Amino acid sequence: QLKQADTVSTYKSIIPVERQSLLSNVDLIANMQFGHSSDWDDGSWQGSKFNMNQFRMEIRGWVTEKLYFRFRHRYTSSFEPQSVDNIIKGVDYAALTFKVNEKWSITAGKMATDWGGIEFDLNPIDIYTYSDIIEQADNYLAGVGATYQATKDHSFGLQLLNPRTQTAEEIYGEDVIIGGDIETAKAPWAGVFNWRGSFFDGKLNTLWHYSVFNEGDDDFQNYMAFGQQLNLNKWSIAYDYKLSLEDVDRTGIIRNLISTNDQTYVLRNTRYESHWLSVQHRIHPQWQLSLTAFVDFSSVKNEMGDYKKVRNAYSYIPAIEYYPFKDYNVKLFVNYVGRVFRYTDFAEDTFNLSNGDTGRLSFGIITPLNFL
Amino acid sequence: QLKQADTVSTYKSIIPVERQSLLSNVDLIANMQFGHSSDWDDGSWQGSKFNMNQFRMEIRGWVTEKLYFRFRHRYTSSFEPQSVDNIIKGVDYAALTFKVNEKWSITAGKMATDWGGIEFDLNPIDIYTYSDIIEQADNYLAGVGATYQATKDHSFGLQLLNPRTQTAEEIYGEDVIIGGDIETAKAPWAGVFNWRGSFFDGKLNTLWHYSVFNEGDDDFQNYMAFGQQLNLNKWSIAYDYKLSLEDVDRTGIIRNLISTNDQTYVLRNTRYESHWLSVQHRIHPQWQLSLTAFVDFSSVKNEMGDYKKVRNAYSYIPAIEYYPFKDYNVKLFVNYVGRVFRYTDFAEDTFNLSNGDTGRLSFGIITPLNFL
Amino acid sequence: QLKQADTVSTYKSIIPVERQSLLSNVDLIANMQFGHSSDWDDGSWQGSKFNMNQFRMEIRGWVTEKLYFRFRHRYTSSFEPQSVDNIIKGVDYAALTFKVNEKWSITAGKMATDWGGIEFDLNPIDIYTYSDIIEQADNYLAGVGATYQATKDHSFGLQLLNPRTQTAEEIYGEDVIIGGDIETAKAPWAGVFNWRGSFFDGKLNTLWHYSVFNEGDDDFQNYMAFGQQLNLNKWSIAYDYKLSLEDVDRTGIIRNLISTNDQTYVLRNTRYESHWLSVQHRIHPQWQLSLTAFVDFSSVKNEMGDYKKVRNAYSYIPAIEYYPFKDYNVKLFVNYVGRVFRYTDFAEDTFNLSNGDTGRLSFGIITPLNFL
Repeated sequence: QLKQADTVSTYKSIIPVERQSLLSNVDLIANMQFGHSSDWDDGSWQGSKFNMNQFRMEIRGWVTEKLYFRFRHRYTSSFEPQSVDNIIKGVDYAALTFKVNEKWSITAGKMATDWGGIEFDLNPIDIYTYSDIIEQADNYLAGVGATYQATKDHSFGLQLLNPRTQTAEEIYGEDVIIGGDIETAKAPWAGVFNWRGSFFDGKLNTLWHYSVFNEGDDDFQNYMAFGQQLNLNKWSIAYDYKLSLEDVDRTGIIRNLISTNDQTYVLRNTRYESHWLSVQHRIHPQWQLSLTAFVDFSSVKNEMGDYKKVRNAYSYIPAIEYYPFKDYNVKLFVNYVGRVFRYTDFAEDTFNLSNGDTGRLSFGIITPLNFL
Repeated sequence: QLKQADTVSTYKSIIPVERQSLLSNVDLIANMQFGHSSDWDDGSWQGSKFNMNQFRMEIRGWVTEKLYFRFRHRYTSSFEPQSVDNIIKGVDYAALTFKVNEKWSITAGKMATDWGGIEFDLNPIDIYTYSDIIEQADNYLAGVGATYQATKDHSFGLQLLNPRTQTAEEIYGEDVIIGGDIETAKAPWAGVFNWRGSFFDGKLNTLWHYSVFNEGDDDFQNYMAFGQQLNLNKWSIAYDYKLSLEDVDRTGIIRNLISTNDQTYVLRNTRYESHWLSVQHRIHPQWQLSLTAFVDFSSVKNEMGDYKKVRNAYSYIPAIEYYPFKDYNVKLFVNYVGRVFRYTDFAEDTFNLSNGDTGRLSFGIITPLNFL
Repeated sequence: QLKQADTVSTYKSIIPVERQSLLSNVDLIANMQFGHSSDWDDGSWQGSKFNMNQFRMEIRGWVTEKLYFRFRHRYTSSFEPQSVDNIIKGVDYAALTFKVNEKWSITAGKMATDWGGIEFDLNPIDIYTYSDIIEQADNYLAGVGATYQATKDHSFGLQLLNPRTQTAEEIYGEDVIIGGDIETAKAPWAGVFNWRGSFFDGKLNTLWHYSVFNEGDDDFQNYMAFGQQLNLNKWSIAYDYKLSLEDVDRTGIIRNLISTNDQTYVLRNTRYESHWLSVQHRIHPQWQLSLTAFVDFSSVKNEMGDYKKVRNAYSYIPAIEYYPFKDYNVKLFVNYVGRVFRYTDFAEDTFNLSNGDTGRLSFGIITPLNFL
């Protein structure tokens, strides 16, 4: 008898039928981005080193015709269980999807938020640097979701999630920042509505979402992203627009930029906006050139209720990618990530912030290594 | 040549025979209990959220006809290696079992303590709330064990284990609590003796144990549990009696209840007792009703050497469970966990403790997902 | 459509061909050394307990004919991501090897340093106690490596690595120790050159390396090891010589021995030297006797620029090993690790250090358990 188990294993001598189908349908994957990078700050070299930028172990697949399982675990993130959802932060996915019928499926567990935009839809190993909003967000949350495949080309999704993995106190600090004004919700929630569309035989794809995060009784974050991707022969062009309006500064860029002694504008009424453009050109079956450029705007409301711009962050990432194998997904890359931070007169006067540039030159290897 | 390896892999083109038998006999399992829960304290709503209550990855199976391996790892527990047994706390099992012959088997490694009682024998994902003694105990310890299968229906087990994963100093604190009286053993140990019985063709099963923990020269914990389970057609009824007599308050409920300023009774001579009853009724092949009820008594010896009751904790868990698939082990559940804490006059007078009730309403999904 | 994925899984009913070859060529292994040990200090018994000395989960194999993947993860080490290479410390390997042709292969990722010496080349579960230099070193580093198989019997390797997983500040402390003298390099690096030779049909094997670690502008560590192994019928004899010359005390034994108040010799100009001898005699197909003995010398330069010996550490490990299965790699062991620490007059006078002996008697089980 087996302690704390639900089935008893007995010794059999051949691969049973159900195991054969599991083997066919479940993948074990090591998602890896490894490279060497050199950093510059305002043109001055800061250092160089090897880096495991991404290492995410993944198990995913159909365990029956109706049930899909996905687990993904980051080895570059903290292993502490989180106070709200009880599972370690580095777990991106621990979720079960039930395919109700051809139209409907339901997912429960910890999962990626079903956000719009092409940028977030890509495998993280294919991103060299995320734009501000995604970089700062909690992208993996516990909850439930439903997907409705309306037609072959259009599906709609709805998620209801915890809005964070930690308590508000852990995220925003205890008294310095929140002040006496914010009443934390007893049942904070996030709702995400999503549309995936496809037009002209997949030549144009759209991925849009609108989401609301409820943090306190009168505190909401409205975040939406509108992504579209055009696939033309050897060219692929993607453009995302993202907008986040935050009663409490959840994204936190301004909160982190200004000193905690300057509390006038802290935390309340921030606005983040982002344009993201990525062009990829497959010049040869094994060679690809790409240019990704994005701008992130950060604003905060002043006492008169007007949004005042704090920072424009311009980023550009030219890259050359080489696929050494025709039949296996591995790529070598060289890229440069240039970032230009421009502060407004308002930010310079009020928060004493000043402009700066950073650069990073990297080369390395990317693979979603399917090892079983 | 392969660095730090014992065998060399070479490229072969078909599944070798030994691999086929491994595939047949080894399971990879994601044990998962995920849900949404709402909490009440003395009738006042505290909050609601999604929760990964349990997520334990497991590998288990026969690697040869004689060798069984089991590994299970909690993703909801701390990942720090422990000071005594050197492996991270979240690892439940990392153990090897050698089947000597039809009668005897021997296990070495970190493993579940072979405790009696039906409650602890169930897969943790099937438990909504553990009774006090199990909830507080170190249930996974390093050591060795032997099992003797006396007849088809009766087996006996004996384990010799480290009594904890951390040092006594880490568990009991350094000077405030232990005082100068307790001399920590240089070779602390735990012994567990276990009997699993089956009667009337499995209609009645028993699972009893007696254990001794030796912590210091004169400090022992005597813990025993007597579980029995009756299976009658669509009904399953289980009853456990548990009793723990502790020279040092290892279970720690009283220690944690009373202020550390009140040191009179601290730590010494506690007694925990528990009655646990669980009734399950399969009203339909895919529907099950269950009611689990238990009471936990906590007592401590006073200066005259008499046990004085501190707290009675009454708990009840009605649940409805639905199995959506006939051929795959997934269940949906709704349950309510009600707990009523009643303190004695002695506890109110001496420790200033007062009564309280808590409630938790949950719904969610449970599966020991066999993904490979 | 699958979020953050690169391929789409669809339901198929038989094991596809590519999966069959993965199954044949990829191993999942639980490297385990578990046992019971008793410790003595200067002849006085300190305590006894069960211990998971080693537990390293490993995935390794050929994912295509050209690509080899290796991942190994320690469950007895800290799970915090490291500041320099970004991946958790407990990951030994997360590396991809590309076999360019019969002669050349290239590896990138986190990997074992390609050090000489038989001791470090063995699977860690087969080592009862490492000699000082290896015990103290960062043995798993991020970087790239190339191997050239010159002939059937001789190969040469070159690695370029980060010299550590943490920053110099984290390793050496911030101000007390380093002083104002050491300028940390912006691009610290380590280079390792390695030769593996085989003579007389494998009867004699050599494994030599020379490495340079560059930590600061004028701060280097030169570490070299020369290992040789003689295989004669039932006897196997291995001898390693290791020498490490360190401008900064990276190995850190002297740094840790002396009080941080004595800063005169701290950190600068240490020298570690080691002779390691291991003799194994297979007295019966299932029984092996072994004796490992090594001496570690620690020296530091005084103000006149002369090396002064601080400590000689003599270690000896007799062991008896039994292989219960003829066809499966499991061994039972009993061993004794005796260590004799002898300080020089210089060390006693200058640092107030005094001699000591330790002993550890252990028995247990070792297996590189190939479970899939």
